[in-house]
Amino acid sequence: PYSCGDKKVTLIPGDGIGPEISAAVQKIFTAAEVPIEWDVVDVTPVRRPDGKFGIPQAAIDSVNTNKIGLKGPLMTPVGKGHQSLNLALRKEFNLYANVRPCRSLAGYKTLYDNVDVVTIRENTEGEYSGIEHEVVDGVVQSIKLITAKASTRIAKYAFKYAQNNNRKKVTVVHKANIMRMSDGLFLRCVRDVAQDYPKIQFDERYLDTVCLSMANSPEKFDVLVMPNLYGDILSDLCAGLVGGLGLTPSANMGQNGALFESVHGTAPDIAGKDLANPTALLLSAVMMLRHLNLLSHANIIERAALDTIKEGQHLTGDLGGQAKCSEFTDAICVKILAGR
Amino acid sequence: PYSCGDKKVTLIPGDGIGPEISAAVQKIFTAAEVPIEWDVVDVTPVRRPDGKFGIPQAAIDSVNTNKIGLKGPLMTPVGKGHQSLNLALRKEFNLYANVRPCRSLAGYKTLYDNVDVVTIRENTEGEYSGIEHEVVDGVVQSIKLITAKASTRIAKYAFKYAQNNNRKKVTVVHKANIMRMSDGLFLRCVRDVAQDYPKIQFDERYLDTVCLSMANSPEKFDVLVMPNLYGDILSDLCAGLVGGLGLTPSANMGQNGALFESVHGTAPDIAGKDLANPTALLLSAVMMLRHLNLLSHANIIERAALDTIKEGQHLTGDLGGQAKCSEFTDAICVKILAGR
Ligand SMILES: CC(C)[C@H](C(=O)O)[C@@H](O)C(=O)O
Ligand SMILES: CC(C)[C@H](C(=O)O)[C@@H](O)C(=O)O
Repeated sequence: PYSCGDKKVTLIPGDGIGPEISAAVQKIFTAAEVPIEWDVVDVTPVRRPDGKFGIPQAAIDSVNTNKIGLKGPLMTPVGKGHQSLNLALRKEFNLYANVRPCRSLAGYKTLYDNVDVVTIRENTEGEYSGIEHEVVDGVVQSIKLITAKASTRIAKYAFKYAQNNNRKKVTVVHKANIMRMSDGLFLRCVRDVAQDYPKIQFDERYLDTVCLSMANSPEKFDVLVMPNLYGDILSDLCAGLVGGLGLTPSANMGQNGALFESVHGTAPDIAGKDLANPTALLLSAVMMLRHLNLLSHANIIERAALDTIKEGQHLTGDLGGQAKCSEFTDAICVKILAGR
Repeated sequence: PYSCGDKKVTLIPGDGIGPEISAAVQKIFTAAEVPIEWDVVDVTPVRRPDGKFGIPQAAIDSVNTNKIGLKGPLMTPVGKGHQSLNLALRKEFNLYANVRPCRSLAGYKTLYDNVDVVTIRENTEGEYSGIEHEVVDGVVQSIKLITAKASTRIAKYAFKYAQNNNRKKVTVVHKANIMRMSDGLFLRCVRDVAQDYPKIQFDERYLDTVCLSMANSPEKFDVLVMPNLYGDILSDLCAGLVGGLGLTPSANMGQNGALFESVHGTAPDIAGKDLANPTALLLSAVMMLRHLNLLSHANIIERAALDTIKEGQHLTGDLGGQAKCSEFTDAICVKILAGR
């Protein structure tokens, strides 16, 4: 189904269950005749010419050329000094916005059936600055870095996202009552941007309050924008409300590229056993298709996946079913082919 | 009911609904013939001799003398430079451990009926260090301060708490995958202390994972110990699972004193209307009685309060009932008097 003119997309299958769920996505894309070509790369760190370990140059070149990638879960090498590869990739390509939609899925019952939120997380600074030092023995300082530039950039991203996706409200999540200067700066930047979007409702909430309310009445929230660590926390909490990281997609967006990834683990215990659930990676791939403006392909695949989950006949073990990864995948493909 | 030998306790009624719910607690304590004497103080900031605004000396002296206090909600004055009074009190008396038990209450239905967790939060440093500066225009750094001393102290508190309260497990909550040095230090300190408590199960989890799991299966958790901000977040999330801050108590414990407080807001909209729910302050007062070793008084009051909620005849508006604060309070008093 691939023709020479097809858009090239970098695929980082990842570790553990990564290859299986990546293969599942590829199979489904083939069934849906998605006009893209995969450029499969390995990001396992290698020793670079300067002696340091890092992402192989070929992988970097692929993403830089294609400007778009899909990524399975990556293992972080054990031991001191090894930074998370997931983070390294976000940094390498300056992917400043992390977008995670969480929606209750028909057919997969949780305690909540009315979740429909999107967390938009500043992805480059904050508590993730990596600047830390031991002042004296037993006294450590970590620096949370907030800049007006990155704060305004993520605020703009959030409001544009809300506008483009017909969202009604943006909530900025902060602790400016405690971190008056850093979160205060973030808050002011978001307030400023909010002024340019008079049609979108704007709301300011403390992080602790949002966590409490999210567990009580998630229907009160819509789009949420926040500094790095708060996004890490809140996106996981929201995922928990709809069934976990196996069901929720994620996108890392930058000026010059975008990387779509499942954010669950590598699940080494079930790796290679055809038991993994490819949903999170598949829904991430659907986000990618929308980004590539392949809207009808995105809709067809998403519909087929959600219907398969809703019908409940071919669910993987984590969803309470008994199907293999390949059976779940085939069920989705059958729907796609039937719809043609 | 008070005799000259009664233990004196500082009472800070607080703002908004504070005075009403404090009066409710006092009434219930009188019904239960609790042998304490209240020393009521106001903490509204005054200009001190040095020209700065601060907590009145009389209030400070009262807590320093009595070494134990009960506190209603406090308003934080609006405007730059005003620090939260709640924080100022924690700092003034070096109340290093914040303890918040969250338990599902029979009679008040939420989505969860199996929550029974205690968050133990380091209360003096971390992201609450107050050290921030603007490096250049639009670039702010906030310092997260982690010391071995405070980390070990809170770890010891948590394990001792678990032991004294027949808890099975302590989970340390961290992001040492990101803040390798600061959270890494915290983690190592807790690990060291854990070694001294071989009978208590010990578990290490990332904060984001805990938030996700807490919303999915809170029954997996027991006692949780963590740095300051994480405790702020997680205690609110846990409170959300059982019905909110109107139902959950809180204790700030120090070497030389302890302050028990409700952590909900001042609710200015309903203040003075006899509509407030005194449960959080009352359950905080029950924690205080246990701290004072007035165990049977604590049990009698707690039983009466929980039974009143369970029976559901006299619930305040926030709990879905129509009772006034005074009616709810009287219902509790009636139970206490009937049991005598
Ligand atoms: C793997 C880890 C470094 C990462 C983070 O903390 O951001 C993860 O939790 C996420 O949310 O993508
Ligand atoms: C009022 C506020 C400063 C406080 C905090 O952030 O600690 C509150 O949220 C709490 O948890 O007691």
